Amino acid sequence: MLFKSFSYTTSGQGLYEITAEIDNVISNMQVSQGLCNIFIQHTSASLTIQENADPTAKRDLENWINKFVPENAPYYTHTAEGADDMPSHIKSVLTNTSLVIPVINERLALGTWQGVYLWEHRRMSHKRNIVVSVCE
Amino acid sequence: MLFKSFSYTTSGQGLYEITAEIDNVISNMQVSQGLCNIFIQHTSASLTIQENADPTAKRDLENWINKFVPENAPYYTHTAEGADDMPSHIKSVLTNTSLVIPVINERLALGTWQGVYLWEHRRMSHKRNIVVSVCE
Amino acid sequence: MLFKSFSYTTSGQGLYEITAEIDNVISNMQVSQGLCNIFIQHTSASLTIQENADPTAKRDLENWINKFVPENAPYYTHTAEGADDMPSHIKSVLTNTSLVIPVINERLALGTWQGVYLWEHRRMSHKRNIVVSVCE
Repeated sequence: MLFKSFSYTTSGQGLYEITAEIDNVISNMQVSQGLCNIFIQHTSASLTIQENADPTAKRDLENWINKFVPENAPYYTHTAEGADDMPSHIKSVLTNTSLVIPVINERLALGTWQGVYLWEHRRMSHKRNIVVSVCE
Repeated sequence: MLFKSFSYTTSGQGLYEITAEIDNVISNMQVSQGLCNIFIQHTSASLTIQENADPTAKRDLENWINKFVPENAPYYTHTAEGADDMPSHIKSVLTNTSLVIPVINERLALGTWQGVYLWEHRRMSHKRNIVVSVCE
Repeated sequence: MLFKSFSYTTSGQGLYEITAEIDNVISNMQVSQGLCNIFIQHTSASLTIQENADPTAKRDLENWINKFVPENAPYYTHTAEGADDMPSHIKSVLTNTSLVIPVINERLALGTWQGVYLWEHRRMSHKRNIVVSVCE
């Protein structure tokens, strides 16, 4: 089992593609095949695998989630950390804190249109820690 | 680490049980215990584990998700690939691209009522690639 | 690969933190580093990683999910097992049946504010089986 942590600084809400960062970690580990776990150590940012070709898909994902997980819902009681905090926890629950992807030929075995994304749910910039584990 | 890819041709929106296909892959690998990753290489079809006893549960899952992830929402901008494409990406984000299930006694260690499903989100038939990885 | 099953008896709908139970399993296995899979063998209870500091976050998660996955929706047909059964399956699909978390220094490598939760979606008390698998 090989581990490598890295941090990624976001600049507010949105989907940030980290496929190249993960492939670089795997390449440095010199693992030709195995299983890769990507784990984000936060509850207000998450991970997802999504279409990496057309930026409109990312924009619509944001629009959809902001409509169905609104800020300032009258039933929120966890409000001390700002209007964007409780929606961030819900969005994190609906997406992924952890992903597992096969590694084949020293790379993530993604489909043609798949990319790995860090999804920042807070409005402000945050430094996010990600742990990559690879099992050979 | 053992790998096996297979493809499954869907016939439009719905949940297709693939538990037997996965158990067959594991059986052919002759792995008695380990950890199995099931990975779908697409962003408009996904995976889920659900009740395998009563077909009404599958129908209601479809009804619920189609209500909360509608086609033709006025805020969609990713519309070039058809009215069912953007909802497919959102449904894929809300469910799973990757599942990890223990293998015990040469089979997935599922609960009594659990089945593994490929969830096709597009209206048309599609050939979907699935990668099964088993770590002993 | 090491396996350990345990059961947890819930007392109705809500989030039950099981981080200490999982860390205890890992400690008994004497694994210093590896990858841990937590798998719940049910389709009406699930797993999630969430904020473990402030109980209001858990309450708001419950409020949000009960609003967006209602009981007695007019389009439900899977109603024979009670009004809370079909919503439980949907909630289970939207959250996780399986989690994978790195193990470092004989513990789950969680972030400061992360806890592992069993999320009971049924109104009644249930005994839930969880399989913990650790790959070194």
